[in-house]
Amino acid sequence: MTTTVGKGKTGPAKYKVIGTRPIRPDGLDKVTGRAKYGADVQMGGLLHGAILRSPHAHARIKKIDTSKAEAFEGVKAVVTANDIPSASGQPINLGETMGNPQTLAENVLAKSKALYKGHAIAAVAATSPHIAEAAVKLINVDYEVLPAVLDVREAMKEDATLLHEGQMTASRVEGDSKLKPSNIAAHSQFKGGDIDAGFKEADVVVEREYTTKPVHQGYIEPHNSTAWWAPDGNLTIWKSTQGPFVVRAQVAAILGIPASTIKVVPMEIGGGFGGKITTYLDPVAALLSKKTGYPVKLVMSRKEVFEGSGPASGTFMRAKIGANKDGRITALQAYYAFEAGAFSGSSVGAAAMCAPAPYNVENFQIDGYDVVVNKPKVAAYRAPGAPQGAFAIESAIDELADKLGMDPLEFRRKNAPKEGDRQITGIPFPVIGCIEVEEAIKATDHYKSLLGGPNRGRGVAMGYWFNAGMQSSATVNVTSDGGVSLITGSVDIGGSRASLAMQAAEVLGLKAEDIHPSVADTDGIGYTGVTGGSRTTFSTGIAVINAAEDINLQMVQRAAKIWETQPEEVEYADGVFTSMKNPQDKITFKELAGKLPGTGGLVTASATSDPKGVGPAYAGVIVDVEVDPETGKVDVTRATIVQDVGTAAHPSYVEGQMQGGLVQGIGWALNEEYFFSKDGAMQNSSFLDYRIPTSLDLPMIEVVVVEVPNPGHPFGLRGVGEVGIVPPLSAVANAVSHAIGVRMPNLPITPASVIEAIESKTKS
Amino acid sequence: MTTTVGKGKTGPAKYKVIGTRPIRPDGLDKVTGRAKYGADVQMGGLLHGAILRSPHAHARIKKIDTSKAEAFEGVKAVVTANDIPSASGQPINLGETMGNPQTLAENVLAKSKALYKGHAIAAVAATSPHIAEAAVKLINVDYEVLPAVLDVREAMKEDATLLHEGQMTASRVEGDSKLKPSNIAAHSQFKGGDIDAGFKEADVVVEREYTTKPVHQGYIEPHNSTAWWAPDGNLTIWKSTQGPFVVRAQVAAILGIPASTIKVVPMEIGGGFGGKITTYLDPVAALLSKKTGYPVKLVMSRKEVFEGSGPASGTFMRAKIGANKDGRITALQAYYAFEAGAFSGSSVGAAAMCAPAPYNVENFQIDGYDVVVNKPKVAAYRAPGAPQGAFAIESAIDELADKLGMDPLEFRRKNAPKEGDRQITGIPFPVIGCIEVEEAIKATDHYKSLLGGPNRGRGVAMGYWFNAGMQSSATVNVTSDGGVSLITGSVDIGGSRASLAMQAAEVLGLKAEDIHPSVADTDGIGYTGVTGGSRTTFSTGIAVINAAEDINLQMVQRAAKIWETQPEEVEYADGVFTSMKNPQDKITFKELAGKLPGTGGLVTASATSDPKGVGPAYAGVIVDVEVDPETGKVDVTRATIVQDVGTAAHPSYVEGQMQGGLVQGIGWALNEEYFFSKDGAMQNSSFLDYRIPTSLDLPMIEVVVVEVPNPGHPFGLRGVGEVGIVPPLSAVANAVSHAIGVRMPNLPITPASVIEAIESKTKS
Repeated sequence: MTTTVGKGKTGPAKYKVIGTRPIRPDGLDKVTGRAKYGADVQMGGLLHGAILRSPHAHARIKKIDTSKAEAFEGVKAVVTANDIPSASGQPINLGETMGNPQTLAENVLAKSKALYKGHAIAAVAATSPHIAEAAVKLINVDYEVLPAVLDVREAMKEDATLLHEGQMTASRVEGDSKLKPSNIAAHSQFKGGDIDAGFKEADVVVEREYTTKPVHQGYIEPHNSTAWWAPDGNLTIWKSTQGPFVVRAQVAAILGIPASTIKVVPMEIGGGFGGKITTYLDPVAALLSKKTGYPVKLVMSRKEVFEGSGPASGTFMRAKIGANKDGRITALQAYYAFEAGAFSGSSVGAAAMCAPAPYNVENFQIDGYDVVVNKPKVAAYRAPGAPQGAFAIESAIDELADKLGMDPLEFRRKNAPKEGDRQITGIPFPVIGCIEVEEAIKATDHYKSLLGGPNRGRGVAMGYWFNAGMQSSATVNVTSDGGVSLITGSVDIGGSRASLAMQAAEVLGLKAEDIHPSVADTDGIGYTGVTGGSRTTFSTGIAVINAAEDINLQMVQRAAKIWETQPEEVEYADGVFTSMKNPQDKITFKELAGKLPGTGGLVTASATSDPKGVGPAYAGVIVDVEVDPETGKVDVTRATIVQDVGTAAHPSYVEGQMQGGLVQGIGWALNEEYFFSKDGAMQNSSFLDYRIPTSLDLPMIEVVVVEVPNPGHPFGLRGVGEVGIVPPLSAVANAVSHAIGVRMPNLPITPASVIEAIESKTKS
Repeated sequence: MTTTVGKGKTGPAKYKVIGTRPIRPDGLDKVTGRAKYGADVQMGGLLHGAILRSPHAHARIKKIDTSKAEAFEGVKAVVTANDIPSASGQPINLGETMGNPQTLAENVLAKSKALYKGHAIAAVAATSPHIAEAAVKLINVDYEVLPAVLDVREAMKEDATLLHEGQMTASRVEGDSKLKPSNIAAHSQFKGGDIDAGFKEADVVVEREYTTKPVHQGYIEPHNSTAWWAPDGNLTIWKSTQGPFVVRAQVAAILGIPASTIKVVPMEIGGGFGGKITTYLDPVAALLSKKTGYPVKLVMSRKEVFEGSGPASGTFMRAKIGANKDGRITALQAYYAFEAGAFSGSSVGAAAMCAPAPYNVENFQIDGYDVVVNKPKVAAYRAPGAPQGAFAIESAIDELADKLGMDPLEFRRKNAPKEGDRQITGIPFPVIGCIEVEEAIKATDHYKSLLGGPNRGRGVAMGYWFNAGMQSSATVNVTSDGGVSLITGSVDIGGSRASLAMQAAEVLGLKAEDIHPSVADTDGIGYTGVTGGSRTTFSTGIAVINAAEDINLQMVQRAAKIWETQPEEVEYADGVFTSMKNPQDKITFKELAGKLPGTGGLVTASATSDPKGVGPAYAGVIVDVEVDPETGKVDVTRATIVQDVGTAAHPSYVEGQMQGGLVQGIGWALNEEYFFSKDGAMQNSSFLDYRIPTSLDLPMIEVVVVEVPNPGHPFGLRGVGEVGIVPPLSAVANAVSHAIGVRMPNLPITPASVIEAIESKTKS
């Protein structure tokens, strides 16, 4: 069941193409198996690589002996971190993307230490994948095994074993001492009002500790990279990635070569969710190609994906929230310790910013700690940081509502922010849909329905994601039959070819099917930021709109030329150019396109965007669960997601994004976790043991699309891809808590933990 | 030995990049075998096609029985002309290119008649090339064999067998009757002054008949096409072609589908010389793909290339030229009958326009006849039409100079046109270098040298080509390291990636190596005309310059933003931006590029060109030959080409183009011809029997580059690719004539024809 509510759809339809559901341009190629993914890359002379990975979570690398592997028949080259020039030490400006080249390089190939089980140590290129796999086993590494630091709280202790001996805590927080090296890479703080006064004012206070485990994005297609580093210095990389330009910048920084000598060709991508931005294999494939003189392909196994690429942070969190009897929140305090994995750089900052955003709070303090542990370096995962952060706050809010005896939604509604209210950063909110989402939840049939049985519970939760803007480029070319080619640099991970083509069609007065969208390589289009941050349909969309408007301008000029009048005298509306002087002079876009070759040539336009008017997104979910008191198994019996999407460009994709976010959040809440042995070895690195939800585990997800148009985009669009994953963690936990009468502050909520909780209740 | 003379190089060097010789960007991939040509295309499910071709030069197709082929194991589909929808009759607007869709379609697959031996009749797609080849032999065609019309003079006779029963002569020439169908497809005429009065005024008149044979461009890579016509209607074609947008338009017209649903992906190309513009295989591969649901690849054999693709016209010509004793030409008359092959459309018009262009003649009449014969439909070949046309005029001029007792170069010099003189079209010449070329020839060591032996002769000749302009598009993107990607739609057949990158570098103040040029597919760039007509470096160059100038403008604005000043206050020269207010504020292009991401994003620009200031080209050659009087074999002992190139963008490529043109012209003069049996079967359809010159046949070609800058291009460029092939046919013939004392009006000058000529001398 899908419902659309909100300002965007009131009155007559504003748009001709936006809001319709054309067939996706990439669908046929994908369902017929014709789409080419990274692992499908083939070329003459292609060598195949394999990577040796550390069996230890923490170990000093004393010596690597590659001689036996090099002597193995069919092996063409072996590389280690010693082959990476930037590891020599000089800092390199990443320019177009963020990150520290040194640690990026050390994550790609371990230098002096292996910092997690699965950390890449060396790589082989050979004439077949089997030879390469056999040869890596012949590489002899002399390790000095060190104690593994696995728990974020243990890692933060003063006497903890250090991953990076010289790492000092980066902090601007008053009172932090910086005297001693630490596993705490950074400490940040948001503070406002008077937190002590706020708690004094409170009638009810809830304070609790929460934990979550590392979870993986679970994209179906493993990481891959094929590199051809030609002797003239030009490096071409074919791969599936969310950020061809990010990969270009990172590889340039790691290898110490100019970005403009690198071409990254994005292939079709089988899921990313934030996990396919950072480079893993590319510099290795490139070095192997340079050494051998042939192109080299590397493809991860599923085990390598789990152990060698970045999951979302495991966390330890505290939330303390106070409210008075009227249901007004008087103070909010949170403590977030996020595992960064082996190198600094978790999303704890985003967690701190997003988690309190559904509440207009005067007195607050949020501390965030970025902590290194001997686990894979974390990566972005759909609204990175926000789901964990929201899990703590939204669980505490729910508990507080219980204590106040208030409907949890009504409690939220009372404290919801609106346009102009100050965010915790001090910046006022733009036009937002928090209240609209909460009211839409209240109006759902689901929220009004009864649970209808014992052992059942209902949870609600809210989520916020700020969304990103960033630069994009687009080129639009008109063909003489009136068809239009649209080129962008935005890899299509969630329907952006459709949503961008639709924006072009809307501006040009054409049908979506008239637009032929494609994704160019990094040499084929202007700079375009990552497909991530829910920015693509929004920001690349604005580049597309700018280019399409330029086309319209040129078409008007051409019509004026044909009619021997001035461009100011030509009007373009509903796909028809009209002379204002002689209104009988009319010509459609397609007819005019046919006249372009003879009147000065076909028209083309390029444009960029770097928009400031990013529209943040709110989502809320309702989850009903039924708990089996015998086994502790939790079944989700009904689930609804309500989200402010600004304007739904292509509603089917929007609904899919919302459903997908909720489903991934349910997996995070109930099933998914990196399960480590005591010495830091992941015990469940396959999709048999790491259980993402399947359609058999879930009911059909109900969707309510709320449209509060974003004034920062011509069609009112907001990013829709991420926020849906933010609320479900706590919504599920709140539902289970209501079903069994015990709060569930630790994820995942396994059957064992449910049984334990039920038993704790009878014991007490 | 290479010499450069002319205005372009006098004084200090004008340019920093133009005129240098950077390493070609495509060189490494080509010499290492990494470059991907059309036949290298591979993809999952690829089927292989083969084509059944007519064994008869002229035959009615009564019935085609494909049942046995269809039943053959491994065969997936068979197509004939009945599968082409446009053959139904309705005219289709080609829009972006010229040509008649109906005859294009009938050349691709014969409809009611096979019109030449090798005419495609049907095609098969199968799981392997071998099965496809075996299966086409199972197709049973019931032919009614008709008399083959092979000689252009025979074809023009009133009682000749007609190829196209309804074809009336297209003519606007006064006095032509149009009462009867004819093999003469068209008659055109250029006329000026008073031809009779001119001849009356003459003291000496030469009149002679000339013939040339069809010759092939001799590109090394055969035609190829891989097509994937997806069930959603989108057709992708991978192929080597000079004109991806031409192929797109032609395929759209032939198949009756919108051009915007077709994407043509140009692969590397192994030579074209004009022969890889028209579509041959693409509609067939597309139809086979549609029928089978799989991508289908077709690659011609060498025999198919000769018999099934377009050579240059064979001709019958007459030239009559008169001059007075002072060496002034008083009248020039020419009659050109050009074989069009099976369908109308030879280059006789270009021949008529170009051949008299080295002479400023008041009284002239040139008649051109486009005549169909039962030979493959002709195609463009380097300055199409001009070599044959010039062969007649330049041979007659040489004979006239002999009769006048004048140095043939001095005679030409006396009659050479200059800027403002009227062309035979009535339009005045722009800035041209005819006189400069002739003076440079006179100044060569070669022209001053003695022949140094018996049986030797020297010939000179001039040639003209108008060059083309036409639309092109280019996109320029700046990377933060200061490297620049350059995207055009111009397939690189002769060094245009280098010459275009150099123009971008010159405008941007960068090195050529900083520019990374690439060729986009038809969905990836704005409309760009064919790589042909010597237009690419010129016209696409102007698009590149326009885009690069836009980039400079944006960079100036960015520098102004950083310095908090106005763009008008920022100067850009020699790669450095300087604040005019504070001259200590200086920043290089590369430094500024590094600051783009932080100050509003990287910059990008697209531009088009449709230039009017095309610079025509003149070339002259000197050829020394030695004739073996025993065998009739002609050896070229020394050869020099002198050409006005405007400005030599990349002198190595320019020299290569000049040398290549001269070499191909020597082959045309001495060795090359389509040798037909009486029933119209080509007898020498292999490179063993069709003898293009090799390096062993020739001396090192000497080159004199003349630079008379073209005011129609910012750097003075003229097209250089074609004119070099125009003079050698007659230069060789003139040299042989001087060596043996008998005029040689028929090409090729085979040993047998030389012996015959020598014998005719002793007989007479």
